[in-house]
Amino acid sequence: MTESHPFVSDERSRLAEAVRHVIDAVLTVEDATEEQLGTAADMAEAIARHLGREPHADDPGRGGPTPRARGVRGRDVRDHDDYLPRSPLVGEVSPLAPPVEWEHLDGRIIGHGTYHAAYEGPPGYVHGGWVALTFDEILGMANIASGHPGMTGTLKIRYLRPTPLHRRVDLEGWTERVEGRRIVAKGRMTVDGELTAEAEGLFVTLDPDRAARYFGAATAEAAPPGVAPPDL
Amino acid sequence: MTESHPFVSDERSRLAEAVRHVIDAVLTVEDATEEQLGTAADMAEAIARHLGREPHADDPGRGGPTPRARGVRGRDVRDHDDYLPRSPLVGEVSPLAPPVEWEHLDGRIIGHGTYHAAYEGPPGYVHGGWVALTFDEILGMANIASGHPGMTGTLKIRYLRPTPLHRRVDLEGWTERVEGRRIVAKGRMTVDGELTAEAEGLFVTLDPDRAARYFGAATAEAAPPGVAPPDL
Repeated sequence: MTESHPFVSDERSRLAEAVRHVIDAVLTVEDATEEQLGTAADMAEAIARHLGREPHADDPGRGGPTPRARGVRGRDVRDHDDYLPRSPLVGEVSPLAPPVEWEHLDGRIIGHGTYHAAYEGPPGYVHGGWVALTFDEILGMANIASGHPGMTGTLKIRYLRPTPLHRRVDLEGWTERVEGRRIVAKGRMTVDGELTAEAEGLFVTLDPDRAARYFGAATAEAAPPGVAPPDL
Repeated sequence: MTESHPFVSDERSRLAEAVRHVIDAVLTVEDATEEQLGTAADMAEAIARHLGREPHADDPGRGGPTPRARGVRGRDVRDHDDYLPRSPLVGEVSPLAPPVEWEHLDGRIIGHGTYHAAYEGPPGYVHGGWVALTFDEILGMANIASGHPGMTGTLKIRYLRPTPLHRRVDLEGWTERVEGRRIVAKGRMTVDGELTAEAEGLFVTLDPDRAARYFGAATAEAAPPGVAPPDL
């Protein structure tokens, strides 16, 4: 990849946003006919092929002249700036991401977003798993903001009340304390100022040997958050 | 919705699977030109419009003659069988879902799936948030399997080592014990027999009043797992 051809671009971001709308439609359009859904499926398969993928191929191989079913990310650059745009929570080019907007504020992460129908668990509320995913990401980002990046060791979520869909959800994450290689981070999720869930995570700074074994020497000091640490 | 027009259908499932391939392509095709990505974005926007959505509309309103940006699920049926196909983990019609295959076995949930590029956190490994989401869902399903459905109160994940992308991941969840309205469930995630993460969750059976307040009386006894309980 050359600098003149960055992975994140206006059109890739527009594509991700359009796919979010398609995801939303798949999960909420109740009155579509089979013919209508079938045409939509044909169109989606055409997009995959247009991007070099064969939706009906079974082989997840790493490329070559045969169209591939699934891709493997092949970028050499593997630092946090490369990761963030693909984040399942805040990633502008990830169709999975709601996405959440965020900023640093005094060493903390402050964010907000809206979870639409694709993120539903109980009727009308955000899936508890998406609440957990949100905290894993926000706490990891908070540790980076405070200068103490680490990998998730344990993550504990406490659910106070259901978090509603289709409404603004505010998020906050911060590093609570650092004890050697152990970093404790906390976070809160609120709607209209009311706490719906909170989290505490124990993160660990990997020693260089283990980081190199997992990610290769080049990424030893730049691995993004959210991964399992070796032993606690 | 009439019985002759079910929400889950062959074509909706095919559409969801095709969208998974599009998501994968958005996140892994490195050499696409802006023109190619722009055409793909146009095609995705066309799918949304074909299904009655306007990707550039800002108003998330509940319908009417104006095309909507985002949808609100409107089905009357709100039981667990209605939920499962839309699950972000096992849902056949959710493009967000990997999806994971599962079965009941002696009152437990046994499942397996493969996490591809869209689920990446650290380079080459499953995002810790997706590991957490997986456990929230698996533990909730295990409680249903054992006859003790509840809502997530606390969820604790312990990450032992990174869970690799593109490989079979085995999952197991079970109800550990039941103490009145409190249900403790546990789960394990393994790759090639090696434990990568484990989880323990405290789930709570809602009292009917609170269930009715959150979900309406009709769903009081049928709310799916994964939601926040009121107070613990």
